[in-house]
Amino acid sequence: MVPAMAPVPCSIAATLDAVGDRWTLLILRDLFRGVRRFEEIQRDLGIARNLLTERLQRLVEHGIVDRVPYQERPLRHEYRLTHKGTDLSPSLVALMRWGDRWYAHDRPPTLLIHDSCGTPLDQVVTCPSCDEPVLPHHIRSRPGPGLRREIALVGT
Amino acid sequence: MVPAMAPVPCSIAATLDAVGDRWTLLILRDLFRGVRRFEEIQRDLGIARNLLTERLQRLVEHGIVDRVPYQERPLRHEYRLTHKGTDLSPSLVALMRWGDRWYAHDRPPTLLIHDSCGTPLDQVVTCPSCDEPVLPHHIRSRPGPGLRREIALVGT
Repeated sequence: MVPAMAPVPCSIAATLDAVGDRWTLLILRDLFRGVRRFEEIQRDLGIARNLLTERLQRLVEHGIVDRVPYQERPLRHEYRLTHKGTDLSPSLVALMRWGDRWYAHDRPPTLLIHDSCGTPLDQVVTCPSCDEPVLPHHIRSRPGPGLRREIALVGT
Repeated sequence: MVPAMAPVPCSIAATLDAVGDRWTLLILRDLFRGVRRFEEIQRDLGIARNLLTERLQRLVEHGIVDRVPYQERPLRHEYRLTHKGTDLSPSLVALMRWGDRWYAHDRPPTLLIHDSCGTPLDQVVTCPSCDEPVLPHHIRSRPGPGLRREIALVGT
């Protein structure tokens, strides 16, 4: 047990602090789909311009999105996922697949396919040691090095 | 292209309508960790009681969480993930792993391990045809049956 005074670090909370907002996740979805310009995103989402500006600024501050010029005269920018942004792909895949399973009535609006062969993709949790897919009820959690360090710091 | 008048169905948006809220995702995290009682969740998250009540009610309405009595006198309830709730496991795993990679400085606070062997787990997107892990830039999307039906309906 961590003493009650210690802030418990949590990577889910860290992620949600950066992107845990409905608009932000929908903006990221658009960027993954290649919708990259302010006007296009605004139209696609029907989001208020000030909200979109604020959300994009936050994404740039977090290093998740780059603001890149695509035209000189007049100067125009578009928004592109950085490596950190692209690395959110598994999160968006997981959220989408859950929506597919529970709200799409076996008719998913979008299929994710392997570019080289066109096969619809799976997302699985695997055990590198057993080399097999792992179901949710076989997943356990244990304190990692970050939490042990926290406990040590509190203990001193 | 879908005509501008047609609502584009999207499973990411469907998921976010159900659980796309920071408190809701943190409540789900607690339920996965076995923190199931109102007072425990409230204390763990430091969330206002009225907000917690409202979020839990929504989760029950969506069939993601069951409210189950655990004591008769006085009557006390706890909250348990349904099958639909447990099925959010890949989403929470993905959000957590991203936080690990970008905010934990190689010291993740929590490790997810395989219960039978203790090995830390991976989450991968795989191609059932090529039998190999697929990187984000090899994932393409194409309209699925749900979107084709939408187009057909708009077209009639």
